[in-house]
Amino acid sequence: MRIGIIGGGQLGRMLAWAGLPLGMEFSFIDPSPGAPAGQLGHLIVAPFEDRAAMFDLAQNVDVVTYEFENVPTPLLREVAAARPVMPAPEVLEASQDRVAEKSLFQALGIPATRHAALDREEELDFALDQTGLPAILKTRRFGYDGRGQVPIFERDEANAAFRSLADAPGGLILESRVRFEREISIVSCRDRTGSVVFYPPGENTHQDGILRSSRAPVRDQSLVHQAEDYARRILEHFDYVGVLAVEFFVVEGALIANEMAPRVHNSGHWSIEACATSQFENHLRALAGLPLGSTRMRGEALLVNAVGRLPSASATLALPDVHLHDYRKAPRSGRKVGHVTALAETRDELETLAPGLFELVPFER
Amino acid sequence: MRIGIIGGGQLGRMLAWAGLPLGMEFSFIDPSPGAPAGQLGHLIVAPFEDRAAMFDLAQNVDVVTYEFENVPTPLLREVAAARPVMPAPEVLEASQDRVAEKSLFQALGIPATRHAALDREEELDFALDQTGLPAILKTRRFGYDGRGQVPIFERDEANAAFRSLADAPGGLILESRVRFEREISIVSCRDRTGSVVFYPPGENTHQDGILRSSRAPVRDQSLVHQAEDYARRILEHFDYVGVLAVEFFVVEGALIANEMAPRVHNSGHWSIEACATSQFENHLRALAGLPLGSTRMRGEALLVNAVGRLPSASATLALPDVHLHDYRKAPRSGRKVGHVTALAETRDELETLAPGLFELVPFER
Repeated sequence: MRIGIIGGGQLGRMLAWAGLPLGMEFSFIDPSPGAPAGQLGHLIVAPFEDRAAMFDLAQNVDVVTYEFENVPTPLLREVAAARPVMPAPEVLEASQDRVAEKSLFQALGIPATRHAALDREEELDFALDQTGLPAILKTRRFGYDGRGQVPIFERDEANAAFRSLADAPGGLILESRVRFEREISIVSCRDRTGSVVFYPPGENTHQDGILRSSRAPVRDQSLVHQAEDYARRILEHFDYVGVLAVEFFVVEGALIANEMAPRVHNSGHWSIEACATSQFENHLRALAGLPLGSTRMRGEALLVNAVGRLPSASATLALPDVHLHDYRKAPRSGRKVGHVTALAETRDELETLAPGLFELVPFER
Repeated sequence: MRIGIIGGGQLGRMLAWAGLPLGMEFSFIDPSPGAPAGQLGHLIVAPFEDRAAMFDLAQNVDVVTYEFENVPTPLLREVAAARPVMPAPEVLEASQDRVAEKSLFQALGIPATRHAALDREEELDFALDQTGLPAILKTRRFGYDGRGQVPIFERDEANAAFRSLADAPGGLILESRVRFEREISIVSCRDRTGSVVFYPPGENTHQDGILRSSRAPVRDQSLVHQAEDYARRILEHFDYVGVLAVEFFVVEGALIANEMAPRVHNSGHWSIEACATSQFENHLRALAGLPLGSTRMRGEALLVNAVGRLPSASATLALPDVHLHDYRKAPRSGRKVGHVTALAETRDELETLAPGLFELVPFER
């Protein structure tokens, strides 16, 4: 089975790594010749808008998937006419635009934050009436790791915020800022026959808009059921094939959807060591028409992202059952260059280890 | 860290796979352009006797190791003068020759089978007096997967057996055929500072001289202690760095060493999923001067080798916590083309699964 992946970052790298034992072959398209996934397959160096390169990728594989969300969907639809694209381009389209994403959540009965789309500064007052304060002004498209977001605490900060983002292509969205108790996410996977598996949800922390850590499993069964129910609605709506991640805020025991990602997700990287089958392998199994694997956890997991630079390998690997993932990216402030996953038999053991791990793993914004 | 591996078979492939998350880079030398490891690094296609190719490999890496045992040791010693070779060439030398290997066992106080070296047919009688009957006549060198071995049950079969192997370079060895109750093996690893870790020993079954299955852990603590003690003697004798495997026969509760392998070993492949750190990762950690990882098992493991051809991926992956490893080798009778590892929480669960797994995974000799 030959898999074509749009994007050659760490997600593509970890997908290929998971697929190699299954005998799969990988091709990637990425604008960077040093893309992390290049070591594990054939890399086509081209921008994602390059129609010829995209067809070159598609024509030499059995199925196409994406690990990067900012792919032009009109081109992706053309590719989908030549080769199966999974998840389908409509899913990507919905997730690329924060307004479309929220409309989808609402249409499927999934609670989402109050929000208002806006293109012109004159619409600010109306939008603020909808969301209340505090709020966050965001670009509708192309945001990641906290980029393209400005918090607004007072009404008189709104115009400056608008002007700082006004040049963003695709317009803006104002969202109510939720006072949440916790952030959790769920990774789910659906195969071609409609079978679905869920990973235990993880509880995430962010720092400067970048995922810093994820702890799994979340034990509150009410949250687990809500998260599974909401994820399932999205999977079924799209006749989805592959991995879907959904992030939620927890407010008074109820979930409010924040965003979804139609791909393997950073908050599920602990599944590599912690689960019988990783999110990467299950995504590939779904694409290949193979049965999905068990998501049973082997213990308690804590993932910590290395941002800016990697931790010392000797210090990290001296800790028992701690696993290092070096994405082979040049160190740069604010860039995710790797992650570390710690496993333990009990949550107490894990929490004893946690402070040392956070100290060890750099976060340089 | 750049690792050079002599041999590009499945062991090289799984080593590279284990090292990629640690950010390591791999080069291989192998006579076959389709060597399984080639997908995961730079492959130099050349025979193992090719001095220029061997130096080409060595000069572009930080450390050299081997996954294949029939490497000319004089050349390996030359390479070792240019780049660290781990384990040291002396170890390989001892393991390449069954007579040297048995002498080593004896010198270290490790029980071994009665045996006699022989070069000429006239020596048969004397050799048979040493070993008794039944016995096995083997080539001293280059044997693997049961090749180069002939059993002798009656004295009058001895001359025919001798003639069938007489052309083998390096001479022959006659070994007493041990009536063992079980075969077990231990995988151990020693780092540059002298720290040693042991994997729980596994119990192996062979079919036509080829490893068919390995179950771990062996629970008999007396056997575990004997195996660890004997492996440690070898590790310390050589100031060993890397993974060492030793195979034993169990006779009336005592271990008799059969052979050793100065490399990652088929009977430890279950460590990929079953242990906190696999034998592959620990070998690389040792080479790289990193701390060794925990060998704690996550449950009960059963490995079944696919010989001749692979099992159906859909049928295999439909079983819970069963993992498929496709070595990407052309199917051929008697050839190990992959393996399957099943994990379970209890031995009973595993044994319930076992018969189906043996039925599913081909053995075509």
